[in-house]
Amino acid sequence: MAVPVILDCDPGHDDAFNILLAAAHPAVELLAITTVAGNQTVEKTTLNARRVCAAAGIRGVPIAAGRARPLRGPGRVAADIHGASGLDGPGFGTGEPDVPQDPRDALTLLRDTLLAHPEPVTLVPTGPLTNIAVLLLAHPELAARVARIVLMGGSTERGNTTPAAEFNILCDPEAADIVLRSGLPVTMFGLNATHQVRATPEVVARIDALGTPLSRLCVDLLTYFASTYREVFGFDAPPLHDPLTVAHLIDPAVSGLARAAVAVELNGTYTRGATVVDLHGVTGLPATVDVATDVDADRFWDLIVAAVRTLGGPTRS
Amino acid sequence: MAVPVILDCDPGHDDAFNILLAAAHPAVELLAITTVAGNQTVEKTTLNARRVCAAAGIRGVPIAAGRARPLRGPGRVAADIHGASGLDGPGFGTGEPDVPQDPRDALTLLRDTLLAHPEPVTLVPTGPLTNIAVLLLAHPELAARVARIVLMGGSTERGNTTPAAEFNILCDPEAADIVLRSGLPVTMFGLNATHQVRATPEVVARIDALGTPLSRLCVDLLTYFASTYREVFGFDAPPLHDPLTVAHLIDPAVSGLARAAVAVELNGTYTRGATVVDLHGVTGLPATVDVATDVDADRFWDLIVAAVRTLGGPTRS
Amino acid sequence: MAVPVILDCDPGHDDAFNILLAAAHPAVELLAITTVAGNQTVEKTTLNARRVCAAAGIRGVPIAAGRARPLRGPGRVAADIHGASGLDGPGFGTGEPDVPQDPRDALTLLRDTLLAHPEPVTLVPTGPLTNIAVLLLAHPELAARVARIVLMGGSTERGNTTPAAEFNILCDPEAADIVLRSGLPVTMFGLNATHQVRATPEVVARIDALGTPLSRLCVDLLTYFASTYREVFGFDAPPLHDPLTVAHLIDPAVSGLARAAVAVELNGTYTRGATVVDLHGVTGLPATVDVATDVDADRFWDLIVAAVRTLGGPTRS
Amino acid sequence: MAVPVILDCDPGHDDAFNILLAAAHPAVELLAITTVAGNQTVEKTTLNARRVCAAAGIRGVPIAAGRARPLRGPGRVAADIHGASGLDGPGFGTGEPDVPQDPRDALTLLRDTLLAHPEPVTLVPTGPLTNIAVLLLAHPELAARVARIVLMGGSTERGNTTPAAEFNILCDPEAADIVLRSGLPVTMFGLNATHQVRATPEVVARIDALGTPLSRLCVDLLTYFASTYREVFGFDAPPLHDPLTVAHLIDPAVSGLARAAVAVELNGTYTRGATVVDLHGVTGLPATVDVATDVDADRFWDLIVAAVRTLGGPTRS
Repeated sequence: MAVPVILDCDPGHDDAFNILLAAAHPAVELLAITTVAGNQTVEKTTLNARRVCAAAGIRGVPIAAGRARPLRGPGRVAADIHGASGLDGPGFGTGEPDVPQDPRDALTLLRDTLLAHPEPVTLVPTGPLTNIAVLLLAHPELAARVARIVLMGGSTERGNTTPAAEFNILCDPEAADIVLRSGLPVTMFGLNATHQVRATPEVVARIDALGTPLSRLCVDLLTYFASTYREVFGFDAPPLHDPLTVAHLIDPAVSGLARAAVAVELNGTYTRGATVVDLHGVTGLPATVDVATDVDADRFWDLIVAAVRTLGGPTRS
Repeated sequence: MAVPVILDCDPGHDDAFNILLAAAHPAVELLAITTVAGNQTVEKTTLNARRVCAAAGIRGVPIAAGRARPLRGPGRVAADIHGASGLDGPGFGTGEPDVPQDPRDALTLLRDTLLAHPEPVTLVPTGPLTNIAVLLLAHPELAARVARIVLMGGSTERGNTTPAAEFNILCDPEAADIVLRSGLPVTMFGLNATHQVRATPEVVARIDALGTPLSRLCVDLLTYFASTYREVFGFDAPPLHDPLTVAHLIDPAVSGLARAAVAVELNGTYTRGATVVDLHGVTGLPATVDVATDVDADRFWDLIVAAVRTLGGPTRS
Repeated sequence: MAVPVILDCDPGHDDAFNILLAAAHPAVELLAITTVAGNQTVEKTTLNARRVCAAAGIRGVPIAAGRARPLRGPGRVAADIHGASGLDGPGFGTGEPDVPQDPRDALTLLRDTLLAHPEPVTLVPTGPLTNIAVLLLAHPELAARVARIVLMGGSTERGNTTPAAEFNILCDPEAADIVLRSGLPVTMFGLNATHQVRATPEVVARIDALGTPLSRLCVDLLTYFASTYREVFGFDAPPLHDPLTVAHLIDPAVSGLARAAVAVELNGTYTRGATVVDLHGVTGLPATVDVATDVDADRFWDLIVAAVRTLGGPTRS
Repeated sequence: MAVPVILDCDPGHDDAFNILLAAAHPAVELLAITTVAGNQTVEKTTLNARRVCAAAGIRGVPIAAGRARPLRGPGRVAADIHGASGLDGPGFGTGEPDVPQDPRDALTLLRDTLLAHPEPVTLVPTGPLTNIAVLLLAHPELAARVARIVLMGGSTERGNTTPAAEFNILCDPEAADIVLRSGLPVTMFGLNATHQVRATPEVVARIDALGTPLSRLCVDLLTYFASTYREVFGFDAPPLHDPLTVAHLIDPAVSGLARAAVAVELNGTYTRGATVVDLHGVTGLPATVDVATDVDADRFWDLIVAAVRTLGGPTRS
């Protein structure tokens, strides 16, 4: 039976691939997409979600815009990594994609979807956790409708936006704190895991070989993403962070997990937004989070390539 | 024209008097009462709001229960000051008050009331600011429906629950931070102002002399409140904090105001929940809050006594 | 028997009067003066200490320069209050005062004085606590040679340099923390006490009436001090903070004391340097500090006037 | 020409090997050893330094005891790693080692040594940085006598004592902050470097094969150290952290270095004591520290084995 899923995302190059994976694989039932400010403004990430769905022929999945700012403070974007549009690389043109934006806001779409689905739903946030935190604050009774939260964010090691903090968590540390303390089951894919899935030239060649318009778009995305990761971090090949979440839902063997306490540093002078992952049980905090560790990169890329093949195939064109 | 008002409160002895004042005075149109955990659990503060309305013959004002916990952490109550019920002193009996609880939760009642009223509405929070913060997070577009926020909380000097922090702010510092940074006009009645309105024996005697069942109940409330303030703080007479907010709406001459920056300390080891009020403009933060300073206590008590007289009079019995 | 005392100070207008008081009164044996950066740079505060001693005929008291910077960070001065020289007002001229600077640094003079005196010595710091903290860190064994520490700093209420912090503590919060946690008996004269001794026109007139060169200099100091306090804080008359410390040693009836826990906030975003004084015993921290509360201002000014009279009198001229 | 060095340490198994290396290699002139509380109390670490010198025939190097506690707070030891003695494993017996303790305290020995040596001296701290920070606070003028500081502490990645903090830095974060901000050239060997030099069975066998009493003692130390690292961290072989410092002085090719800003987190709720190493230049802090990165473990172990051989050889027995 397919896992019912809401993607809460800020596309974003790697978010885009997560949408493709969730839409393509029969093990996942993609109920809705909500967007949030993160890699770019929420207007841009919402437009990008619609563009990805339009390009991949994903229709019938409602897409609603969520929070434009974190719970506290002014927010930040990652234009250095994802470009001015948040999804630089492919030539999307200037027209409106033919996939509409849902008139509801993300909070309402989340609530309606959770209430409508007969089974508890898995939330998959791959941007700042603002929308999810607001959902839990505004409608605490809906926590019972959430099966689990499988998120991309944080790190067991260094961060990527500051030495201590990963981008998604740093964008809204208070939201991350609320989600991690919510009592809901959380699985965390941090940089320590996602840095193991690099879009190498070999990977890009496999996608390119599919020879579809969608595979072409994917190659353009990965090529741009590679260029910024090379420039900013000196990486040979860019890590495709977000799709590890849905890949895990499809095939748990993609990643090892360790149960650990995870706290978000809210107060540090230099460490605000750090995820403190207690792998050795020294803090006395309860170990409640499944933290991704070793990743089987081959298994992961097979899923990604298959998703692009499925969506780009003749039955959809 | 009457000021349309929603009271957001945690009765609480002094909250109770604020309900009386708002209901009694023609300058105020009391649209709704929402409750929050603070002086006691939200179940108790909601029951207490209904009890006060029932005892004072206040009918037709919807009362809805709000948040049971602050945005972060486990919450606290002030049983040492307000007793096990949150409104100890009078014998309320064990029966249900004949004023009902609205089936909506506070967030929904706030939203519906703001949307329904033709004019922007003044919010008067006299407990922890959880409900108001959640409203602003969940429905940022409703900020335009809020005329202003007149709150009891904080201090320009010491706190009362820790050396640095006042109870309402300490209960939910993150909520206070969100409200104070919201951009909405805020007027703050802190301990520096509210400690100037003490329910002295003379004040109690004036209320007692009204000779109505409601005045008897008010005397019982003040007598209990005096006993805990004497014990905990060594005060000769207890300060009736909350009603300064509605008194200010009725008669701005009740209190002087100074425009100042007010920040909430979220990070201190010993000062979390402190309101940092920049009366001398040294922090460089923008001065956006009207902070109550000198209070005309006589003017205040006249309003309180008049409210008890009005509500307890023959036309209502 | 006279109390053996080392003044550790940053003159500073009010520090100057403390030197006069300590030198003039037979109940105090002034063993040494050490200086520290605070109201001005340590070069200037050292020069000022020498100038005050020269003007008042105080000879034979060694004066050594201490720390130029706090334990952490870049330091600050209070030129807005004490002027470019740290002791603006009187025309000191540009010559060298005929009271020398001790060749030792403050740490060495403190150590030597403590070791040389047969009895434990009282330390009276009226500037940032850097020198005293360094003494305790460098020579922990000398703590046993310290009778007690009577300091000017902090507040039970608001600060004066930020809303939360008083100048001396804010200049070096880590040093204050070390001193307050040292286990040594500490008596604290904070703003709540020192704001009760204002150099009103009546006080100034009394000093002026002494008609000596020293009284003239004192009037010039107080006149300048009044002008900056009026400008910066809007005070009618300036508080003469520091001499309350030595006044207390001479006559404990000058001030009431309350035993309380005092913590220094090191971590707050807005409250760094605040002294958190637990007057109601709510923090669970041990009450170890004698905190000055009510002050008998008349008694205090009598001591000050007498000191100026004594030092400026015929036996010294 | 040999590098003049003072070791400031808390032996400690790995400190012991650093003493051996510094004493054995002609490229290093070991001027003094100062001890500090860390792996065990300062009484024990001082005794251990004497024991190591006695066992290795290191005579004439003054050994003085330093600070028993960090600048702030109560201190901690690492008995879980280093045992009750701080140097568990070998049977040292209960007698006094025939290497004496210098009657001076560490601060005085540091000062005297720095003043006496014609050239600036390299400080090599491999424990908490308390002694070095106190030196800089008490005698700022002696900074000019320090050539550089080569320390073991911190990490570019996770910590070992908390998820964020390494033991030496966590023991005294304020001291580390003072040292790192001192303006002196600092080279930092953190866990990211030291975890690359594991005392594998092959390494132990090489030392064992030397067949001297000292090599026997070294094997006993490494065997005990391996047992605790296996138990606490699940490591196959224990990292011999400290001697990378002296190894670097002997042969810079032992380790790569990256110039980066390093800040110590003092304020975090969960991250106090973390070293925030800005490898990608994102914080705007000045890059002033040489941070060890890749280590040539073979080169390192060759130095260690040679030191044990040299000290245990016939000319010393």
